[in-house]
Amino acid sequence: MTTPAEHPAGLDRNNPEAEIVARAEAYRNWGRWGADDVLGTLNFIDAAKRKQAAALVTEGTVLSLTQPFDMNGPQKGWRRRTNPVHTMLDTGTDAERGSQGFPHGIGGADDVIAMPLQCSTQWDGLGHIFDHGFAWNGRRAGDVVTSEGDLVTGIEHAAASGVSRGVLLDLGRFLRPDTGELDDGYAITADDLNACISAQGATSVVGTGDMLLVRTGQLTRARRTGWGDYAGGPAPGLSLTTAGWIHRSEIAAIATDTWGFEVRPNEFDVPAFQPLHQVAIPNIGLTIGELWDLDALAEACIERGRFEFLLVASPLAITGAVGSPINPVAVF
Amino acid sequence: MTTPAEHPAGLDRNNPEAEIVARAEAYRNWGRWGADDVLGTLNFIDAAKRKQAAALVTEGTVLSLTQPFDMNGPQKGWRRRTNPVHTMLDTGTDAERGSQGFPHGIGGADDVIAMPLQCSTQWDGLGHIFDHGFAWNGRRAGDVVTSEGDLVTGIEHAAASGVSRGVLLDLGRFLRPDTGELDDGYAITADDLNACISAQGATSVVGTGDMLLVRTGQLTRARRTGWGDYAGGPAPGLSLTTAGWIHRSEIAAIATDTWGFEVRPNEFDVPAFQPLHQVAIPNIGLTIGELWDLDALAEACIERGRFEFLLVASPLAITGAVGSPINPVAVF
Amino acid sequence: MTTPAEHPAGLDRNNPEAEIVARAEAYRNWGRWGADDVLGTLNFIDAAKRKQAAALVTEGTVLSLTQPFDMNGPQKGWRRRTNPVHTMLDTGTDAERGSQGFPHGIGGADDVIAMPLQCSTQWDGLGHIFDHGFAWNGRRAGDVVTSEGDLVTGIEHAAASGVSRGVLLDLGRFLRPDTGELDDGYAITADDLNACISAQGATSVVGTGDMLLVRTGQLTRARRTGWGDYAGGPAPGLSLTTAGWIHRSEIAAIATDTWGFEVRPNEFDVPAFQPLHQVAIPNIGLTIGELWDLDALAEACIERGRFEFLLVASPLAITGAVGSPINPVAVF
Amino acid sequence: MTTPAEHPAGLDRNNPEAEIVARAEAYRNWGRWGADDVLGTLNFIDAAKRKQAAALVTEGTVLSLTQPFDMNGPQKGWRRRTNPVHTMLDTGTDAERGSQGFPHGIGGADDVIAMPLQCSTQWDGLGHIFDHGFAWNGRRAGDVVTSEGDLVTGIEHAAASGVSRGVLLDLGRFLRPDTGELDDGYAITADDLNACISAQGATSVVGTGDMLLVRTGQLTRARRTGWGDYAGGPAPGLSLTTAGWIHRSEIAAIATDTWGFEVRPNEFDVPAFQPLHQVAIPNIGLTIGELWDLDALAEACIERGRFEFLLVASPLAITGAVGSPINPVAVF
Repeated sequence: MTTPAEHPAGLDRNNPEAEIVARAEAYRNWGRWGADDVLGTLNFIDAAKRKQAAALVTEGTVLSLTQPFDMNGPQKGWRRRTNPVHTMLDTGTDAERGSQGFPHGIGGADDVIAMPLQCSTQWDGLGHIFDHGFAWNGRRAGDVVTSEGDLVTGIEHAAASGVSRGVLLDLGRFLRPDTGELDDGYAITADDLNACISAQGATSVVGTGDMLLVRTGQLTRARRTGWGDYAGGPAPGLSLTTAGWIHRSEIAAIATDTWGFEVRPNEFDVPAFQPLHQVAIPNIGLTIGELWDLDALAEACIERGRFEFLLVASPLAITGAVGSPINPVAVF
Repeated sequence: MTTPAEHPAGLDRNNPEAEIVARAEAYRNWGRWGADDVLGTLNFIDAAKRKQAAALVTEGTVLSLTQPFDMNGPQKGWRRRTNPVHTMLDTGTDAERGSQGFPHGIGGADDVIAMPLQCSTQWDGLGHIFDHGFAWNGRRAGDVVTSEGDLVTGIEHAAASGVSRGVLLDLGRFLRPDTGELDDGYAITADDLNACISAQGATSVVGTGDMLLVRTGQLTRARRTGWGDYAGGPAPGLSLTTAGWIHRSEIAAIATDTWGFEVRPNEFDVPAFQPLHQVAIPNIGLTIGELWDLDALAEACIERGRFEFLLVASPLAITGAVGSPINPVAVF
Repeated sequence: MTTPAEHPAGLDRNNPEAEIVARAEAYRNWGRWGADDVLGTLNFIDAAKRKQAAALVTEGTVLSLTQPFDMNGPQKGWRRRTNPVHTMLDTGTDAERGSQGFPHGIGGADDVIAMPLQCSTQWDGLGHIFDHGFAWNGRRAGDVVTSEGDLVTGIEHAAASGVSRGVLLDLGRFLRPDTGELDDGYAITADDLNACISAQGATSVVGTGDMLLVRTGQLTRARRTGWGDYAGGPAPGLSLTTAGWIHRSEIAAIATDTWGFEVRPNEFDVPAFQPLHQVAIPNIGLTIGELWDLDALAEACIERGRFEFLLVASPLAITGAVGSPINPVAVF
Repeated sequence: MTTPAEHPAGLDRNNPEAEIVARAEAYRNWGRWGADDVLGTLNFIDAAKRKQAAALVTEGTVLSLTQPFDMNGPQKGWRRRTNPVHTMLDTGTDAERGSQGFPHGIGGADDVIAMPLQCSTQWDGLGHIFDHGFAWNGRRAGDVVTSEGDLVTGIEHAAASGVSRGVLLDLGRFLRPDTGELDDGYAITADDLNACISAQGATSVVGTGDMLLVRTGQLTRARRTGWGDYAGGPAPGLSLTTAGWIHRSEIAAIATDTWGFEVRPNEFDVPAFQPLHQVAIPNIGLTIGELWDLDALAEACIERGRFEFLLVASPLAITGAVGSPINPVAVF
């Protein structure tokens, strides 16, 4: 088997399946952490990494990397992904009017939410994507995720795995110093990632167990122009050909400011859908973050001239979930 | 006005309203952080506190303090609080069978959730409780929380406020070395808190900006005996008379391993409902965590002989929410 | 007080409030069925009317007047009205694969739905609209509908009230024989209604206790051109000036093939919103049906030369609901 | 093949699978209405039957046969079946307070619901149950119901099929004239059904296209004693051995006042689960109604000495649903 191409020019644009299979075989981590593994690349985070991450807190400044969970979000209903619907069970209006039936002047408000777990800032769990009927670590997809949920790699297993060193690569600013925003359809290459690290300097070096945040600038643009097709349409993002770079880097997780982390439209002339997901999640075992807001973080990094920080992004422990809404925080 | 009693024996058990009003007036923080404040005691967390907290990470060990978000949870439908209902939009079974209609062998699973925001491990937001028709900082309840949500103090404002030094006070073990579990109905007093701090030692000292975690042991018991009335029934918890201690301590937040943080039944011989909430949330401006799992944390603290750690508990940025599901993590 | 104008030309287009108040006062039915009434004009349906309706079944032909309850519906999220989200708890794929854990070869599928009660074919209940803080029969709005639901006139009270004679007035075909579709913004007048009855003939006469169905043709257009702003945008519909006609006719209910039953934009040059609702629901006590599909019914009526039929449209008995999804059926 | 036993004494209580298979083979209607059929026994309802049904309306009296859709319902969370959660998007309290932002004094209330489609009074659709991996009409279960819903026999196809002659058999009163309530675990036999028809008289004769309602009295008991295990626990209901009677009767549908229509515990000494469902839905193609309230209907029938009426029970047209909440109405 030849090594898969690491530049889009090397892709056979008429054969996505072959390109995916080659990378799946080349970069597959099945069995690397034992037959029972449920964490994939999150295993790369160890105690030393967490100590290193905490030591990056030199100021005590904290930034949230979340987008709002809001009815006015980007979702348009595709594949039944709606924006979150948040409703009240009790209100202050009722409390003030005195109609709640509680004693001694107490009043209360409660609320409920109905939402897809992938509707806003989130982690994709290991049960989110399958490759030819197989899930992470080589399990049959139907043995893992039934209509009862992910019976094996549910995101609850990652409840204590979201703490590490975070590194921001601001590809938007690096490649487009004029606007800070990559064009929709721009495929970020391994060379781009390496060059950005070089340009940003030593605090940007990415290694085993780090959580890598890639800012494309697409969210900045959506804020200016409206959501449009932000949820599922054309977007800048990682090229399928970065699969090797991702594998070698031994990052624990990756997240972007886009809906789908990889470039869209996908890099083929025939029908294709999220080929890098197909390599990354079930084969590499990579946890992927989407719909993050990296704009304030990018400004904070530039201001300080450093691109590393303590990152905490803990999924909700929803039993059997294949994803989780999160509120990631970066601490300097 | 006399100083409100700081021991249950001093309560007039026939007059909850007077006891509440006295404490509300004595400990009210309205205006303390300006007329526009939306954070309350979370304001006590400053950069120095966060640096101090991060410096507690000496090992790189992380523990999640969450209970599961699961259909088999404690909720029984009271006030429409159900357990979370998690359903799949796509499954591995469908993917494996090849019926999803995607190209090149990719398959996917997505999911949705419908849940009360207070159903499992959570923060109560500042719009959760009202006092005589008033919300935090003296606003009219009906100006703050309508059926559109909390228009002023929605929990999204606290998105970057959940990072601080955490301190565990294991009242269960301290008061009941035999079982490690306080009885239902046991009212934790200010003296109990102070004595526990003394017994646990210097790492347990609680001060401005800390997040205080109080383990009662009730969850330990529920795990052994079944949920029973864990969600809303009798429970150990803080006495109304601790309001002064809480106010003076200048803690940023408090959380317990119970449904409702304060003792239940409440400490009156006439109908009463969560009087300490009525003082703490709208008057003191305190963020309260409930349904946390502090058991593994307690063991970790005892093992190390230290009761302080970095605590990160970031709410989801749900616009207008009066509470949020969370996955708090403690890092040693 | 002068009689309110019954033609749009008589409206003061700069004073919606005065025009609404005049009609509210002129046509108010408060107290007509006693102080405790919870049904409004549904009271007009009596046993004789139901017998008459059943006697219209001369063929045994049944037609459903429902639109689909489907993710691909017209809702766009305005005021948190989404399309219904239907998800499976168990599937045939899982059953066929044998992973459900049931004995002797049985398998099952269950499902859940999350939807606004006004998302597709529906009845508006009496608690759906208020006039200057008052609900049907003169009750304070806040005494009727709190965050616990409609405590007084919840749609469960109408569970046995949806059976009557139905009459179709096909205003689309009558006024636009060329296309069968009224233009968006066309305000149907009392004269239009009377002329349509005359043209359609004796089976179209509308009287006490009938349920009146008005076809505008807008749904026909939306099917051809896509939803666009069908849910809330410009639409043909009844003029505010038909309030008197509606009141005198003593119809039990009215329904249309549009989102909002009345003409949109509303007939004013200053901000206005659904003025006929404001007169009809809280003052007249009228039950209003929206998002019905009247196209097949219209063809059936024309084919038969008769416009009356047995109509059964029973709301779900959702405690405290201010509306209900329905599947209305017409039987010839 | 011998004819399956039509009395419980003839069952091999250690071999549910053989007893089910025998009946499935004997009573299977696959292909009876063509290869593309999506209605099953609802096909038995024809125009003549509907005319006959309408002609039963001699008084104009209407009764709803629904149970409430209410948080205080019988569901306990088994298989994620909760009671319906109904929440408000807008309230009268807000409207009265003037905080909704609408012009000219209009106010509004909207609501949403989240519920299992099988939570209260309902029809089971044809995709609800499978037999050895096969669905109604011999289709592979995984070709019919995926996580996208029932792609073939979704309940929307039955939107115009819920109108027929209804017949009530009050087995509770017939077999237990003392209490009117069958004991939990009582298995109604074919002989019981025939004897009840004889006793009730000519208006009770059941034939092709009728919808049969069987009152057991269990709901009456639950109303008196509390829900207990009404949703899924022991119950009176039809014996597996009535499958032949059901098949020969050519009824269009059957409904009961219990959770599961058939007797529980099921009639075997080894693990078994709803064997009559397994024969009736995928093999006979029978539509089954559950959780109906037949008490007022039974009184109305006795009072009149007749047990037949127009029955209208139209499912909501939820695309791909395997069941639907309904409000069935009987008209005399």
